[in-house]
Amino acid sequence: MNIKTLEDLFIHALSDVYSAEKQITRALPKMARAATDPELISAFQAHLEQTHGQIERIDKLVEVTENVKIKRMKCLAMEGLVEEGQEIIDEVEKGPVRDAGLIAAAQKVEHYEIATYGTLCALAGLLQYSEAKNLLAETLKEEKDTDIKLSKLATIKVNIAS
Amino acid sequence: MNIKTLEDLFIHALSDVYSAEKQITRALPKMARAATDPELISAFQAHLEQTHGQIERIDKLVEVTENVKIKRMKCLAMEGLVEEGQEIIDEVEKGPVRDAGLIAAAQKVEHYEIATYGTLCALAGLLQYSEAKNLLAETLKEEKDTDIKLSKLATIKVNIAS
Repeated sequence: MNIKTLEDLFIHALSDVYSAEKQITRALPKMARAATDPELISAFQAHLEQTHGQIERIDKLVEVTENVKIKRMKCLAMEGLVEEGQEIIDEVEKGPVRDAGLIAAAQKVEHYEIATYGTLCALAGLLQYSEAKNLLAETLKEEKDTDIKLSKLATIKVNIAS
Repeated sequence: MNIKTLEDLFIHALSDVYSAEKQITRALPKMARAATDPELISAFQAHLEQTHGQIERIDKLVEVTENVKIKRMKCLAMEGLVEEGQEIIDEVEKGPVRDAGLIAAAQKVEHYEIATYGTLCALAGLLQYSEAKNLLAETLKEEKDTDIKLSKLATIKVNIAS
């Protein structure tokens, strides 16, 4: 029983998403290479840049928040989500159908992050980690915006391809 | 290369979420037993009932949509998400902090489903599977409502516990 307080739960969730973000930085270049549509490729590349910024934001959060340290752990759910993206690359030939599958896989990743950063924002509010809450809210907004951008891309591109 | 068309991609995503829903029906009773707050327990029980209905809805979709059959597969992402919920049960003593962790785990599950049913609805629209699209939209609405319900529970209950 290692998690006893809401502070511990916050650290657990933060460490989980830190691992998730690291895994995403390794997956996105593969997804960009596997995609065909230039707008989708540049969306993946832009999100890779953004993800690096989100990792830096977690590092900053740890710096400014007393008693918060990242634990070394592996986000199991993100491992599964990344495998699903790889499955699409393995099972679908390069082209518009694969692009549609990659968008779907990326949106699952975004929703994982939306749920996690939503929880972290709520916990930071309760724990009165005000600077941490602001940093987390910035990332949450970016993840929601990326999800909307991907939905729009899916509607336009997959519609053309069908 | 088994997925060649948008129809194939639809069947792949549908089979994935069918496996996810089955896994959820096994996880929710454990989460209900592990929770303390009566409202949270009844939210998990209510969502279990709803999940059974969602599985029946997929069965109906397959019945009414030509050439759509479920493939036997295991949703890897849901496997990871369920393991994360189990981790909370293992690492946190029964009580309000565990409840907060269970809510967070459940919201990740909801977001996985929101992303997947969102994709399925979009694909069903493009493929002109109109009855399927209506069935999927019903489930999508239920998942979004459950996520909102869990957010509210987290705000009230975790606030009291902190």
